[in-house]
Amino acid sequence: MSRLNHEWRLSAHPIGKLKASDFNWGEQKIPDIRESELLIRNIYLSIDPTNRIWADERESYMPPVETGNVMRGLIVGVVEESRNPGFKEGDIVQGILGWEEYITSDGTGVSVIPYDGTVPLTAFFGLFSHTGLAAYFGLDDIGKPKEGETLVVSAAAGAVGSVAGQIGRIKGCRVVGIAGTDAKCGWITDDLGFDAAINYKTESVPDSLRQHCPNGIDVYFDTVGGPILDAVLGQINFKARIPICGMISQYNSSEPVPGPYNFINILYKSARIEGFIVLNYAERFGEGISDLVKWYSEGKLKYRIDVVEGLENAPAALDKLFDGTNKGKLIVKVSEEPSI
Amino acid sequence: MSRLNHEWRLSAHPIGKLKASDFNWGEQKIPDIRESELLIRNIYLSIDPTNRIWADERESYMPPVETGNVMRGLIVGVVEESRNPGFKEGDIVQGILGWEEYITSDGTGVSVIPYDGTVPLTAFFGLFSHTGLAAYFGLDDIGKPKEGETLVVSAAAGAVGSVAGQIGRIKGCRVVGIAGTDAKCGWITDDLGFDAAINYKTESVPDSLRQHCPNGIDVYFDTVGGPILDAVLGQINFKARIPICGMISQYNSSEPVPGPYNFINILYKSARIEGFIVLNYAERFGEGISDLVKWYSEGKLKYRIDVVEGLENAPAALDKLFDGTNKGKLIVKVSEEPSI
Repeated sequence: MSRLNHEWRLSAHPIGKLKASDFNWGEQKIPDIRESELLIRNIYLSIDPTNRIWADERESYMPPVETGNVMRGLIVGVVEESRNPGFKEGDIVQGILGWEEYITSDGTGVSVIPYDGTVPLTAFFGLFSHTGLAAYFGLDDIGKPKEGETLVVSAAAGAVGSVAGQIGRIKGCRVVGIAGTDAKCGWITDDLGFDAAINYKTESVPDSLRQHCPNGIDVYFDTVGGPILDAVLGQINFKARIPICGMISQYNSSEPVPGPYNFINILYKSARIEGFIVLNYAERFGEGISDLVKWYSEGKLKYRIDVVEGLENAPAALDKLFDGTNKGKLIVKVSEEPSI
Repeated sequence: MSRLNHEWRLSAHPIGKLKASDFNWGEQKIPDIRESELLIRNIYLSIDPTNRIWADERESYMPPVETGNVMRGLIVGVVEESRNPGFKEGDIVQGILGWEEYITSDGTGVSVIPYDGTVPLTAFFGLFSHTGLAAYFGLDDIGKPKEGETLVVSAAAGAVGSVAGQIGRIKGCRVVGIAGTDAKCGWITDDLGFDAAINYKTESVPDSLRQHCPNGIDVYFDTVGGPILDAVLGQINFKARIPICGMISQYNSSEPVPGPYNFINILYKSARIEGFIVLNYAERFGEGISDLVKWYSEGKLKYRIDVVEGLENAPAALDKLFDGTNKGKLIVKVSEEPSI
């Protein structure tokens, strides 16, 4: 084997924003695999807000990535060689692996995707993986939306929010999405069927929430935290439920960030705030995928993919995510899909 | 009827602390009761942190008390006259009524206490009413403590916290209480069986929590909010549960109060924070009272009453509550218990 592997290693835990200078680009020979190992060629790397959490020095829901190590990432790839009986050459696999072109693995945490070409491979990251499942389980297990209730979704044109809002519509809720451009607001109302959209950069969120949620807010699916969460807390109904999927507004902060000023409404309204990560629901993934595939095939779920070409552009792709210029689920195309 | 009724009316919504000057002391003739009404002589008035919430201008979980109206309060009294078939002279009753000596009612929200003298009438406010039931249902429905888990309780020598901690011990938890004097800390460890106590006025709460909760915190029963909640959030375990029964630290604030700085741990630890009021569980009160009476009769639950004499001292009693000088459940004795 004389092919080279390229990779991004974390060179420093970021202070504030995660910058290109926090990574080192390296190359080395791909090693021969040993008994029980497999070699995966990375096809797509998922770029997610949680990448910023993983790069932090502080422990979160997973240990941080140590400096000097390959950056952690969720990938979809193809098995090029296997000496592990659980995998064969040509298998399409996914796992929380690394920002590199070729990955040597003993198979731990790697699973085969039953990919048959019926839907594009990118739909996997757009709907049928962590983002779709986060929307599905956060709403189902914590949000528990009931027909006729009002659901508000932040980052509503994002990979998770867009699915959460569409599921809310399927469940019979009035769904109001919050996003950062008029184009995103138009997409979620015109294409995804949200009842209303709020551009938080040009509108007063409290005023627009009052206008679009005349019966108050029963469920808030949150991925951003910060002032938007605060505005929503000011208008929640009795027994409101707030699944917390992310707090992207504060991942880049190097100073302590106060919680919401309307925090006392949790008491006044007997409300529930609950954080979660999609891995908490691993045992129920089959159920979630089954519903998501059904709704997709019925035309009730749509998604949009924003592809950045080339692993060398992965750090720059993170910038798009945090400045909100991505249009849909952000992925890096590392290599070509195999023809099937 | 020529007897006089004395009463406290709210003269102004408080700014900051609820002061004696926010009330007017008045007297007037007790009116004759009409068909279907009853006349209650107030015996004990419960003084609770939530009185401050009711006096506020802002709506909370109940409409505020309007200025000019008699201050709202939970009372135990005896029926002196009744023209309502649901009540007879001599019945001991309770209800969310008013800060007055005699109360005319149509019976709405008034219920008869099956009082037979087996336990002191004050035990009703100490254990078998809103405070004991708040501890019971907040822990049972939200906290869900499991044997071997660590439970932290704030205001642990208070009316609710002291019961919550004792129930935690009954459920097999390691229980750590936080209180504001060494005497209170001694009471909860020596008399109530808490495993450890922290004096938040003389100790570093984060340091002492680390010392007394070596396995982290699974359940936090909170009645205070503020910096203590923040310290606890910094040390919660995966899937921690935090019932919010009160936020006394901020009731008197006239400025916006930020939420906890460790708010992001709700996400990182997949934790749940949920507010509640005891009235949410009205349908299950029988079950709660039954368990509380059983544990009390088995010697597993203790309580302490702090009696202030005379309705005229009710506003001053509130001060004791907010400066923490009360010793046990605070009540105002308005008139003598009937002999039974």
